[in-house]
Amino acid sequence: MPDLAARLRGVIPPLVTPLDAAGEVDVGSLRRLLAVALSAGAHGVFLGGSTGEVALLDTEQRRTAVEVAVSEVAGAVPVLVGAVDTGTRRVIEQARGAEALGADAVVVTAPFYVHPHPEEIVQHYRLVRAAIDLPVVGYDIPSAVGARLTPEVVATLARERLIVALKDSSGDLAGFRETLRLVPTEFPVLTGSELVADVAVRLGAAGLVPGLGNVDPDGYLRLWHAARTGDQARAGVEQDRLARLYAITQIPDRRRIGETAAALGAFKAAMALRGIIANGRTNLPLLPLDDTEVKSIAEVLDELELGPVA
Amino acid sequence: MPDLAARLRGVIPPLVTPLDAAGEVDVGSLRRLLAVALSAGAHGVFLGGSTGEVALLDTEQRRTAVEVAVSEVAGAVPVLVGAVDTGTRRVIEQARGAEALGADAVVVTAPFYVHPHPEEIVQHYRLVRAAIDLPVVGYDIPSAVGARLTPEVVATLARERLIVALKDSSGDLAGFRETLRLVPTEFPVLTGSELVADVAVRLGAAGLVPGLGNVDPDGYLRLWHAARTGDQARAGVEQDRLARLYAITQIPDRRRIGETAAALGAFKAAMALRGIIANGRTNLPLLPLDDTEVKSIAEVLDELELGPVA
Amino acid sequence: MPDLAARLRGVIPPLVTPLDAAGEVDVGSLRRLLAVALSAGAHGVFLGGSTGEVALLDTEQRRTAVEVAVSEVAGAVPVLVGAVDTGTRRVIEQARGAEALGADAVVVTAPFYVHPHPEEIVQHYRLVRAAIDLPVVGYDIPSAVGARLTPEVVATLARERLIVALKDSSGDLAGFRETLRLVPTEFPVLTGSELVADVAVRLGAAGLVPGLGNVDPDGYLRLWHAARTGDQARAGVEQDRLARLYAITQIPDRRRIGETAAALGAFKAAMALRGIIANGRTNLPLLPLDDTEVKSIAEVLDELELGPVA
Amino acid sequence: MPDLAARLRGVIPPLVTPLDAAGEVDVGSLRRLLAVALSAGAHGVFLGGSTGEVALLDTEQRRTAVEVAVSEVAGAVPVLVGAVDTGTRRVIEQARGAEALGADAVVVTAPFYVHPHPEEIVQHYRLVRAAIDLPVVGYDIPSAVGARLTPEVVATLARERLIVALKDSSGDLAGFRETLRLVPTEFPVLTGSELVADVAVRLGAAGLVPGLGNVDPDGYLRLWHAARTGDQARAGVEQDRLARLYAITQIPDRRRIGETAAALGAFKAAMALRGIIANGRTNLPLLPLDDTEVKSIAEVLDELELGPVA
Repeated sequence: MPDLAARLRGVIPPLVTPLDAAGEVDVGSLRRLLAVALSAGAHGVFLGGSTGEVALLDTEQRRTAVEVAVSEVAGAVPVLVGAVDTGTRRVIEQARGAEALGADAVVVTAPFYVHPHPEEIVQHYRLVRAAIDLPVVGYDIPSAVGARLTPEVVATLARERLIVALKDSSGDLAGFRETLRLVPTEFPVLTGSELVADVAVRLGAAGLVPGLGNVDPDGYLRLWHAARTGDQARAGVEQDRLARLYAITQIPDRRRIGETAAALGAFKAAMALRGIIANGRTNLPLLPLDDTEVKSIAEVLDELELGPVA
Repeated sequence: MPDLAARLRGVIPPLVTPLDAAGEVDVGSLRRLLAVALSAGAHGVFLGGSTGEVALLDTEQRRTAVEVAVSEVAGAVPVLVGAVDTGTRRVIEQARGAEALGADAVVVTAPFYVHPHPEEIVQHYRLVRAAIDLPVVGYDIPSAVGARLTPEVVATLARERLIVALKDSSGDLAGFRETLRLVPTEFPVLTGSELVADVAVRLGAAGLVPGLGNVDPDGYLRLWHAARTGDQARAGVEQDRLARLYAITQIPDRRRIGETAAALGAFKAAMALRGIIANGRTNLPLLPLDDTEVKSIAEVLDELELGPVA
Repeated sequence: MPDLAARLRGVIPPLVTPLDAAGEVDVGSLRRLLAVALSAGAHGVFLGGSTGEVALLDTEQRRTAVEVAVSEVAGAVPVLVGAVDTGTRRVIEQARGAEALGADAVVVTAPFYVHPHPEEIVQHYRLVRAAIDLPVVGYDIPSAVGARLTPEVVATLARERLIVALKDSSGDLAGFRETLRLVPTEFPVLTGSELVADVAVRLGAAGLVPGLGNVDPDGYLRLWHAARTGDQARAGVEQDRLARLYAITQIPDRRRIGETAAALGAFKAAMALRGIIANGRTNLPLLPLDDTEVKSIAEVLDELELGPVA
Repeated sequence: MPDLAARLRGVIPPLVTPLDAAGEVDVGSLRRLLAVALSAGAHGVFLGGSTGEVALLDTEQRRTAVEVAVSEVAGAVPVLVGAVDTGTRRVIEQARGAEALGADAVVVTAPFYVHPHPEEIVQHYRLVRAAIDLPVVGYDIPSAVGARLTPEVVATLARERLIVALKDSSGDLAGFRETLRLVPTEFPVLTGSELVADVAVRLGAAGLVPGLGNVDPDGYLRLWHAARTGDQARAGVEQDRLARLYAITQIPDRRRIGETAAALGAFKAAMALRGIIANGRTNLPLLPLDDTEVKSIAEVLDELELGPVA
């Protein structure tokens, strides 16, 4: 476990789940995506996160995605797997499944649908930790879950060694910083932010888990290396460029499709345009982008000179 | 299906899931709870709803609860089963499980964790409906799910026959009424309200699905019969008494345990005190009520002369 | 004060503030609106509420509106005046102004912009009460204020005689009922609901304060008298008709104008179409309805046979 | 106006409003506070902001505070004055008052209590701008107002020269950065953040408006100068120290007093302990801190060696 924590540093993209025309996992596209990420230098991969449409995947889809990733990565970097579900027992079921498939760690949110007390959130992680042999990474994503993992709760989880790292997708940089103040020095806090990744690294983020890293892994790798070596000017330039790329998530019309469909649809459309995956299909019941929207995304890629991957 | 819809009238308590000391389903207590509900005259039972701690139950617990209910009820009244999960495919998995176990209908919320557009919510029900042979009951519970099934969405679902009834746990009586205005006359809208059940019946609710009905099924049956026959004075008196009983959910200290733990813990504590179930244990990671809180609940039961069930 | 409380029963429309082309109070239109309300049988009038665009009125506009109302009503019915502001001292300034102009009572919300504790809310009313000679009516409108006047807070305010009545615009009928259970029998709770007014009366509402009462005061008077005399069928029919009328607030396009502009613009457009006021202008910075929207509102009026007032 | 914008750089503390035992503005304490801020090197002062309890001040209190500030500052640095109110006309009334008293600029939020469309927010600033001769500073504080000034809205306001600067109290650093990308280069964006001020400067903030600057103006001046000159290590050390100081806002018990009372009460208590103001009194109806809480605040000051000001 200390080993794993030490390896949770750098860029760990939360991979999308490519789908074929029948709606099943497009294994070929997933393999290519993994290859693109690894050849860009990714320090890990995260399967079954929010960007991976985990809430919309059934058991078979989740299993396939993890199997492919574990096999393709072959130990080169850690494979993190989301065990995202409403309650403790459900999470344990999923975590055991991930364990059996060879995941290196599971990524676990606070309970949702229910309204837990912070002490019940701690209890949740205590029970999950006790039930499995895999390390657990905490996942703070209040936009999906409705509740925060506060800096105080994270500090408790870290101190009791219930989690080996945190993925912070809260969007609250002051809270991120407070968390860093409260946890042990060596405890890795990863940021899920696409837009203040450079700043997060300077403040002490151990790594980046940006959904947009599916579209432009090279960009986040460059940002990471620049930021890590103190070249903040260059990190800032990369961050600005990635912010312009992130604007593709604003292109889909929210009067027609939902927020999740817009963001994930834009990522996948851009990936398809770059040839990373075969098509931009999202899981049901999300609605697809239309041709005009895809064309606008293509224009952004052109402006940023993000062509097909080799 | 028309048959089922016609039977979705009256009091259909959303049953708690009693647990034994090991945290598994306490089958004896569940049998007794079912017997108490049926002998009180319940017109149906609902397993695996929010009151049934569905978000905290694993596959085995859900299966046991449904098996026991289907076997115990033996066709006397409809057995509704929650297929509560984040996305379409997950819901379909759960719905098929319920179908295989003999459920009469599945109860399905909007997707959550993700942020769907209303049209994507409709699409969700369309796909679930197409994938299973069971009737689907819509479940509007924004406090858990974060999104509404608006009256317009419900009207679309009813018109396209994607759902055969609605359980309205929105707490929005004006919206409930608007829904009634928009759906076909025979479409049953059930209210999940504990506190305005009498009014809901007068406005056209086809039935009641009150969590508090676990504690005092007789009370809700009396309320239902009074309200149905136009004896609003008597219905109002019952409703007032039940509102005083509902105050048990305010007893647990929210600074120590969460909102879900407080409400479900109060229900289960009261049921244990009445001998309906063996103990008041809730599922992990919810924290238990303390002795003082249970004592206060006992006092409320005493005041309302709610003693042990026969 | 007991006298005033006794008179706070029946229909008390929260009057819009008609504006002329220069954006000043259109005194002629306001006089006509008052005459229409009184001749319909209104039991009071409420100036400077949310429907009166109180948040957008400057000192001069507020003064004019109150002066005209006090003069026109001439003691026939109570004139309530909103003293709606962020903090205690600001509210007292406004309340004293209303007092000087001859208001019969002031209507006061919880503090906003700040985030008060319930005990600070009680303190707010205590201080306002001590600073003026007029009776105070509590105003629970969480959609505007962000905080609730909970049933417990209202009960405290009523018991300490800090307020003589409550206007409940919370939309929470279970809470409304709980409030009725907790306050002294004679304490008047008025509902601000347009859509469950009939039910509220049956549950014990002392009166109605519906914004839509500007458009169709006769309708709410009929509803009131039917509901008061126990003729719930007829009250229900009126309520249904008024719900269809209320749908005019859904006509304006929310992608172009805000929620407040849409609702108040629809009310004023309908009033102008009926000849109650000279035009449908709302206060700046609210944007106006467009011609298509006004035409759709005219069609709803036609369907409901709401022609020009005599 | 270009002149003013050029001067809106550096540390501009949003001053508290000290009160005497009668609840009126404590002019002596305000003078001392101004002297402390100026001698620390503050580049401006902001009267009547959220930290100044603007929502709780009556006309006389606001006038006194501004008069004292204008007189004491005597042109040495800009005096910004909040014109914080619900609607356009109310804001104009307040802005004219500030103008007459010699303010250098007014600080204006989006309308609140009402629910405006973004285009109505732009219209609001257009009308305020046209009605007064003073420059307007936009104030984005969604925690108080309920609505955002989005980066797009700010860009429009800046482009149309309706505002000369922005105070960003949104807590959203990604949005702050997006705003900087969209506005003209010379447009000053000031951050209201206490906790990521160093980062904000590095990203391009023209200045700091931290409430905590009332307690330790020297600290924010040191942070500013370090961050401006690229000494990020030293800026980070100051920021960490100020984060420890900011923890005083967590000391008051939120079960007893509200969030606003806790934060402002903590600031004022610390200021009184340091001898900057005579006492820690907040405006009614906020409740006071208790002795234990004040003692805990004193301990934090001791730990950080923040003794009495000279």
